[in-house]
Amino acid sequence: MSLDAFRTMSKPAYTVAVIGATGLVGTEIVSVLEQRQFPVADLQLYASLRSAGAEMRCGDLTALVQPLDEGHFEGADIALLAAGEQVSAESVERVSESGAVIIDTSQLFAGEADVPVIVPEVNAPALVDYINRRLVVSPDAPAIALAVVLKPLQSLAAITRLVVSTYEPVSGAGRAGIDELQRQTVDLMNGRSTDNEIFPQRIAFNLLPQIGEFLAGGVSHDECRTVSGLRRILNEPDCPMSITRVRAPLFYGTGLTVHVATAETISAAQARELLAGAPGIFLQDDVVNALYPTPAGTVGQDAVYVGRIRADDAANALDFWVTIDNVRKGAAVNAVQVAELLVRDYL
Amino acid sequence: MSLDAFRTMSKPAYTVAVIGATGLVGTEIVSVLEQRQFPVADLQLYASLRSAGAEMRCGDLTALVQPLDEGHFEGADIALLAAGEQVSAESVERVSESGAVIIDTSQLFAGEADVPVIVPEVNAPALVDYINRRLVVSPDAPAIALAVVLKPLQSLAAITRLVVSTYEPVSGAGRAGIDELQRQTVDLMNGRSTDNEIFPQRIAFNLLPQIGEFLAGGVSHDECRTVSGLRRILNEPDCPMSITRVRAPLFYGTGLTVHVATAETISAAQARELLAGAPGIFLQDDVVNALYPTPAGTVGQDAVYVGRIRADDAANALDFWVTIDNVRKGAAVNAVQVAELLVRDYL
Repeated sequence: MSLDAFRTMSKPAYTVAVIGATGLVGTEIVSVLEQRQFPVADLQLYASLRSAGAEMRCGDLTALVQPLDEGHFEGADIALLAAGEQVSAESVERVSESGAVIIDTSQLFAGEADVPVIVPEVNAPALVDYINRRLVVSPDAPAIALAVVLKPLQSLAAITRLVVSTYEPVSGAGRAGIDELQRQTVDLMNGRSTDNEIFPQRIAFNLLPQIGEFLAGGVSHDECRTVSGLRRILNEPDCPMSITRVRAPLFYGTGLTVHVATAETISAAQARELLAGAPGIFLQDDVVNALYPTPAGTVGQDAVYVGRIRADDAANALDFWVTIDNVRKGAAVNAVQVAELLVRDYL
Repeated sequence: MSLDAFRTMSKPAYTVAVIGATGLVGTEIVSVLEQRQFPVADLQLYASLRSAGAEMRCGDLTALVQPLDEGHFEGADIALLAAGEQVSAESVERVSESGAVIIDTSQLFAGEADVPVIVPEVNAPALVDYINRRLVVSPDAPAIALAVVLKPLQSLAAITRLVVSTYEPVSGAGRAGIDELQRQTVDLMNGRSTDNEIFPQRIAFNLLPQIGEFLAGGVSHDECRTVSGLRRILNEPDCPMSITRVRAPLFYGTGLTVHVATAETISAAQARELLAGAPGIFLQDDVVNALYPTPAGTVGQDAVYVGRIRADDAANALDFWVTIDNVRKGAAVNAVQVAELLVRDYL
């Protein structure tokens, strides 16, 4: 028996649907399926009517992008949703009827107890709950980055407080976000006035402490979702968690400052040793040589980068700096990793 | 007696020296002296040999910028230093010999117990210690912003923990920093490769979690100075304070996320009421209408802007977002306010 034949027998192939296939995350999902050699037998690509009609390749397969409105998802085993909360709200029921297991990169269901929120390096066993609604949430980039980095620390000491600030790129708002920063930057560098459509105010050479609509109490919708997701992944229902999400004038790559207080003291050296060996982490922490993560240095990488680890002994806390490629591990790679777990253990 | 004559009698005028007069902060100091009608009888302007020779105006006065190396500061009553730590280290002794009281905008002396660190809205009485070494520190922009905002809260409850992240513009590194972001942005928008001289890595469309050289333990020199200064101003020698200072691709205006835990609970509404009436603060906190401070909206303003105030009840903490014009209240305005206090109460 040839190796290929064996592979075909031992590892069946799946029909995979990607919804939002032409978007920033959808395109990356199709690439990642190919790069990680996910066993795709058939590929169904869906997008808005405006984007339908294009052809996309994934390994040896070529598929035509179909209008989502007309999609029936027939025979799909796994459906990856990458089109934002509104499209998820509109399509989840329809996709479910096809029998596919849904992996949703939007955070619409991050707060629902019967829907698992999964970061494969952190809480793979919780995926068993996919069966409740045949639905899994792949969390947002900040929650993924935080989960990957905090999990190893949790093994040493309980987390008693978490304070996070994010520095997030415009690609978090998709291609239209990238276009807006580009256009505003060119306008300003040419001394022209500029306007805004995607972001609530000018983002070029500015900062906007708003990601998502605000809820009563002043926390934003997206901040709330990040905390909901993170609580679920780390199994920390009660620990105080404050997060402020801020949009910065970057194209790709999210930065996060993290302050984590623990029940017992963890030294910076202990943290470094733990994190250096932990799955999904690249430790880049050598301040003597001014080595630390940056968004520019993380783009295209699948690991979560950690650096600038230092201990605040008076507070029993650690401070550090984290970066993640928000489109890859922060979205597409994590979703495909969840699909890999699904087919390995359940489908 | 005419009003002018009365003013001359009741309010003597002073000989003011500005060191680093042609730099970003020095230029702004000269403007602010004029805008705030500081009683300048004579103006001595000093800069590096390269920048000497220019003429600058301040109200009715015109002064020639002289080379600092040849400066004797004769007759100067007040000397404002705005040329960075190295120039302060080299000139403080020489300036002192002239008898002038020095207001240093560098943080070289922020940790020295006999040198007062002053934010006029916050700890004006401490200025009496100027007499020890005829030297006063005007703190850095993050310390000024934090002091102005935290002081009113201190009146309600003791601060038990402070966690701050900054989003700082390239103007913090002077004109050369501005030039570098401008050049790198243009290079990248034209598809050219780019290089860096002023910042340790590319800053355009990137984030650098480094402001100042790193010390043993991983905190940077500038982070350490901010904490030293803030502890002095707020009289909080022991409270745990974590700060991560990050350079972002902005020209002007610093953003800060602040998490402050207190001994007794302060509600968001209490905080809003307190801060709305506090000196030097502009409260811009109406998330229902998506109103919050941004660096772009703070440039040219002398107030510290505060918004996005919310309570983290589980942690007895408040979270909020602060912006400050780093060149004005973050440097020039605060220094001139210190000069005003000096002449009002002591000189």
